[in-house]
Amino acid sequence: MNSKQIEKKIDALASLGIPRMYNNDFLLTWDKTEEELRAVLTVAEILRGMRDANISPRIFDSGLAVAIFRDKSTRTRFSFLSAANLLGLAAQDLDETKTQIAHGETVRETANMISFLTEIIGIRDDMYLGYGHTYMKEVSEAVREGHGEGVLPQIPTLVNLQCDLDHPTQSLSDLLHLTRHFGSVEALKGKKIAMTWAYSPSYGKPLSVPQGVIGLMSRFGMEVHLAYPEGYSLIPEIEKLAGENCRTAGGTFSRSHSMAEAFAGADIVYPKSWAPYEVMQRRTGLLKAGDSKGLEELEAECLELNKGHLDWECGEQLMKRTNNALYLHCLPADISGVSCEHGEVAASVFERFRLDTYRQAGYKPYVIAAMMLLSKAKDPAALLSGILKRRAPRLAGRDRG
Amino acid sequence: MNSKQIEKKIDALASLGIPRMYNNDFLLTWDKTEEELRAVLTVAEILRGMRDANISPRIFDSGLAVAIFRDKSTRTRFSFLSAANLLGLAAQDLDETKTQIAHGETVRETANMISFLTEIIGIRDDMYLGYGHTYMKEVSEAVREGHGEGVLPQIPTLVNLQCDLDHPTQSLSDLLHLTRHFGSVEALKGKKIAMTWAYSPSYGKPLSVPQGVIGLMSRFGMEVHLAYPEGYSLIPEIEKLAGENCRTAGGTFSRSHSMAEAFAGADIVYPKSWAPYEVMQRRTGLLKAGDSKGLEELEAECLELNKGHLDWECGEQLMKRTNNALYLHCLPADISGVSCEHGEVAASVFERFRLDTYRQAGYKPYVIAAMMLLSKAKDPAALLSGILKRRAPRLAGRDRG
Amino acid sequence: MNSKQIEKKIDALASLGIPRMYNNDFLLTWDKTEEELRAVLTVAEILRGMRDANISPRIFDSGLAVAIFRDKSTRTRFSFLSAANLLGLAAQDLDETKTQIAHGETVRETANMISFLTEIIGIRDDMYLGYGHTYMKEVSEAVREGHGEGVLPQIPTLVNLQCDLDHPTQSLSDLLHLTRHFGSVEALKGKKIAMTWAYSPSYGKPLSVPQGVIGLMSRFGMEVHLAYPEGYSLIPEIEKLAGENCRTAGGTFSRSHSMAEAFAGADIVYPKSWAPYEVMQRRTGLLKAGDSKGLEELEAECLELNKGHLDWECGEQLMKRTNNALYLHCLPADISGVSCEHGEVAASVFERFRLDTYRQAGYKPYVIAAMMLLSKAKDPAALLSGILKRRAPRLAGRDRG
Repeated sequence: MNSKQIEKKIDALASLGIPRMYNNDFLLTWDKTEEELRAVLTVAEILRGMRDANISPRIFDSGLAVAIFRDKSTRTRFSFLSAANLLGLAAQDLDETKTQIAHGETVRETANMISFLTEIIGIRDDMYLGYGHTYMKEVSEAVREGHGEGVLPQIPTLVNLQCDLDHPTQSLSDLLHLTRHFGSVEALKGKKIAMTWAYSPSYGKPLSVPQGVIGLMSRFGMEVHLAYPEGYSLIPEIEKLAGENCRTAGGTFSRSHSMAEAFAGADIVYPKSWAPYEVMQRRTGLLKAGDSKGLEELEAECLELNKGHLDWECGEQLMKRTNNALYLHCLPADISGVSCEHGEVAASVFERFRLDTYRQAGYKPYVIAAMMLLSKAKDPAALLSGILKRRAPRLAGRDRG
Repeated sequence: MNSKQIEKKIDALASLGIPRMYNNDFLLTWDKTEEELRAVLTVAEILRGMRDANISPRIFDSGLAVAIFRDKSTRTRFSFLSAANLLGLAAQDLDETKTQIAHGETVRETANMISFLTEIIGIRDDMYLGYGHTYMKEVSEAVREGHGEGVLPQIPTLVNLQCDLDHPTQSLSDLLHLTRHFGSVEALKGKKIAMTWAYSPSYGKPLSVPQGVIGLMSRFGMEVHLAYPEGYSLIPEIEKLAGENCRTAGGTFSRSHSMAEAFAGADIVYPKSWAPYEVMQRRTGLLKAGDSKGLEELEAECLELNKGHLDWECGEQLMKRTNNALYLHCLPADISGVSCEHGEVAASVFERFRLDTYRQAGYKPYVIAAMMLLSKAKDPAALLSGILKRRAPRLAGRDRG
Repeated sequence: MNSKQIEKKIDALASLGIPRMYNNDFLLTWDKTEEELRAVLTVAEILRGMRDANISPRIFDSGLAVAIFRDKSTRTRFSFLSAANLLGLAAQDLDETKTQIAHGETVRETANMISFLTEIIGIRDDMYLGYGHTYMKEVSEAVREGHGEGVLPQIPTLVNLQCDLDHPTQSLSDLLHLTRHFGSVEALKGKKIAMTWAYSPSYGKPLSVPQGVIGLMSRFGMEVHLAYPEGYSLIPEIEKLAGENCRTAGGTFSRSHSMAEAFAGADIVYPKSWAPYEVMQRRTGLLKAGDSKGLEELEAECLELNKGHLDWECGEQLMKRTNNALYLHCLPADISGVSCEHGEVAASVFERFRLDTYRQAGYKPYVIAAMMLLSKAKDPAALLSGILKRRAPRLAGRDRG
């Protein structure tokens, strides 16, 4: 993007009504208005455009962005770090093995103790159904109390880096990828997206990616098709929500237990493994009870169950049924014959879309930075306009990156 | 604070005689003059005032602040990180499990190897009586030799983040909290502070907090009362020092074995558990000898000993004996019925002062930043005056945080 | 250095023909031209001179420098962190225990996933013969593919922080130390350097330091003598390469199995332990096979083998045979009677050169920063000239560090 194009994006941003984003968290896409979602996409594109043009979008001279990862992560971790750094914040892990966050009292206290000079708190907590989102709300309430009571000079705003319900930085990166691939958000209207389960020789993969995808893609008039083997449902309330979204947005929502049906005529396919909702619920109970024998048994049972669905693989035959579909994956994918014997996707299909999946992932740092910026700027369009005029180079002595 | 008020504080700073702070460590409050202590408080308030006014007090364009934590920490760790970041330094942990600092030769060498571009070294080493402070002095001497011999272009100055003797960043945060609560350092004159032991179902808590508190609060004309069950004394030399300080400063120092006596008429109470000096000495010996069986026995013995003093709890009845006292705690507190069955403080008392203890903790980043700045600036008042004039925004496009 | 002297160095840099350094990795010194090596030394001196003169050489306003350490490190880690920070990059570890980099597919993917906003990737991978350098090339190819295909907006360039073949940041720091000690690169012509094995009670030390030293020092017309007990050879191809280098550069390359012969008339001695090439090969096989019993036996065998060469110690008698030689070591050294009973060097020799070895290590941050800068600047002399004119202070309000 050149300066003119960036200016145009800033104008588009200025036209959006987003008064509730300032000083607010980004936890679930379905809590956000369509304008707010578009603001994230637009700011992400502006920030990327600026960086490509060697214009530094740094807005902070100091401040921390704290990362709390309760599950391992490379992609999202580095995206968060990069986003923080791009805006001028120092990223800092809160390592809970060193600090032991436990009961409610401790959450409330620790949230304030790490936040005296903290602008952003990013949290991944996707292990236990019913807990991740709840924990994020507890942290948010704690720092808001702290700010209100003069403990914290600013409100640290939260970015959900994956919870038990949603994975908004992923789904919005996916969406940005789609808008670039198809040309615009409007161009997605009427497109069919197949969010399908796929076989994996692993166990306990969170539900938040498929939930996040159907929860978001249902907002833009698409035909959303969700497919999984019997017994592999997502959280029922979120499936229901996706259906309602589709009706409101003028799209359709359908479900099946057939990958072939899902892929038929699809413009976009997103085949990805997850654990059945019912298994995740039992798992949460066993984890809480510390029942390691029960967990082992559940894992064995679940892997055995998976094996009944080895044919849920995104192979060439299935791809032929699509409308020349774009393949999406949040990575890493289980690739048959590469990372495992049987997996989510055939090697030839994956290889054809490999660089596309990298590009898909590449939007995440900018999506996260956009969420950060929108929660910190009262008038984000004016702020970005000022940055564009300032033209501070990101790398000295270079015109373009 | 507005600019006028910040200027006034800078003027107050300029009037203090503090030539020995430049290029010097901050290890023990009792090695510092009253003017030096006031300088820390004053700079802390200036830095906080600037940040609140969205003026960035960044003084470094690059440089490291190395953190060596030989005991776990959340509060102090994040305070150190935040302080470093506020001034423009990148904080970096020295992880000793990866690096193995051991005998004297290694300390000397490693201290230099991590310091080529390091401005500040923060150390927490509070586990062994007789070792933490000694270790800090070894590190300090090593980097001073390195500087003198042309190895290091600057002197990395040390900040004691808790040793076996003192916890100056804690006690000075406590003091700053008190001066804000009571109006000024002068207003503390004649106030009674009760530093008392309290029951905890844990074992081996360091002595440095109570030692730091009596070592510092004794400097300002207060009535310092130290209370603990028989056998729970602090390091005798430091109790003695506190007494001498009080005499010099026109206050009083008293001791008892009664929480009730300590609380009577107190303006400030600081009930907090610690391990008896004699136990800590035995523990140090056993740790050095690697006698894990002996350590287990000592722990059991000590926990049993503690149980004889379950009544050392800061409850409502005791609080009624005080002069409407302010409750202090360095956090986390053992709260009866919340974090444990019987603890240091009753839930209702803690909840009433909970936000106050958060505010108390909130001074620490600024106290640490002040120690850093004062060790790096030849003329700190002139430096801060220049920063105030520069008015670089901490967050672009915002007037106030 | 004052501004005039820095300008002169920049002029010298401008006269070097180094078009291939831009957007290129630094993996092996023997892949680099003499002009490219001189450019590293020159930029390292310029950066050090600027920092000493309180001129900030920061060229990045944001960006990451990712560190991948597959073997523990203090010295090199802190040098890398410091270099990144000096230029304005945030250093970030990729912790592989959290991320699991394994087969080729994963390397390719992870390399891109961590690189969306990454400028530099520093890698230490020195454990397995035949793997470290190969892994670095895989990472390099992966990010170049990513850049070419629009995944990455910039090419993250690699800095080899020690592989199985070379340790260029070490050997170039050693070289810079020598040029400062003897006056210039030219002054090294005809000087005798003895790179010798030395006894150590440890096992499995990598070959890359001695290989790096003979691979680099052979480029400048020196008399390079390599000595080790029978059976302790380096990788044969690299010994051969050093010989060829010496012939080309007008020096000599000799080998012996005698420390006395090596030290005779030497101007520089570098006595350092390493594991025999043949042992390292067997070790690699056993490690790959996960044969822990075999590894234990190999270790015992190798330590026993070492004991036959206790006399390979850099003692006073040997030092007397030299031409008042400068002692070098990459640290930490095994010092007889200090860090072990029998070691690489006598305590009195080490103590005499201790601060010299610290100074030797002190060039590493600047050498790494120079490698970074030269891979990022199309016209490094113009960039540095601009920085010198800008005169942004590294520490506000100070004239000199």
